[in-house]
Amino acid sequence: MELLVTYDVSTETREGRRRLRRVAQVCEGYGQRVQQSVFECNVDGVHREQLVHRLLGEVDQGEDSLRIYRLLEPRAEFTRSYGIQPGYDLHDPLIL
Amino acid sequence: MELLVTYDVSTETREGRRRLRRVAQVCEGYGQRVQQSVFECNVDGVHREQLVHRLLGEVDQGEDSLRIYRLLEPRAEFTRSYGIQPGYDLHDPLIL
Repeated sequence: MELLVTYDVSTETREGRRRLRRVAQVCEGYGQRVQQSVFECNVDGVHREQLVHRLLGEVDQGEDSLRIYRLLEPRAEFTRSYGIQPGYDLHDPLIL
Repeated sequence: MELLVTYDVSTETREGRRRLRRVAQVCEGYGQRVQQSVFECNVDGVHREQLVHRLLGEVDQGEDSLRIYRLLEPRAEFTRSYGIQPGYDLHDPLIL
């Protein structure tokens, strides 16, 4: 299934910045970064649960927001993309 | 249809920060902000085209990224949300 993972991680503290890096690292193992805090992931049900489990191990639910959407498929048909495309250097997570 | 609008707007310049504010303002007219740069919008085809047109009038496609996804419906059934929920103060756009 096609998932979109989006997150806001509070980066006011060093701990928050660490969480932001770790959330991005988890997502990188499951899909393609397309924006600073947005990943497209094509996973089966098992990997979806694993992904959710790992993300919930990183975020602070009192400080951060994590949302996971199922996308209509095929994704390419139901996605419109404008401007800068993935592939530019998004390796480093955005630090505010 | 249910759309998810996500964007990265470069805020290194005053002009970029202005774009970020204006992109958020456009989105606010069509849906619910759920994260700093993520909006859920329930629109018909006409309003989708209007939304896209207005957003493309604000972003700088050489600097920014705008992505619009069709979501599986009903959205509530295909969305998982953790942590801070919409309704906290997201009125002010995030300025880096």
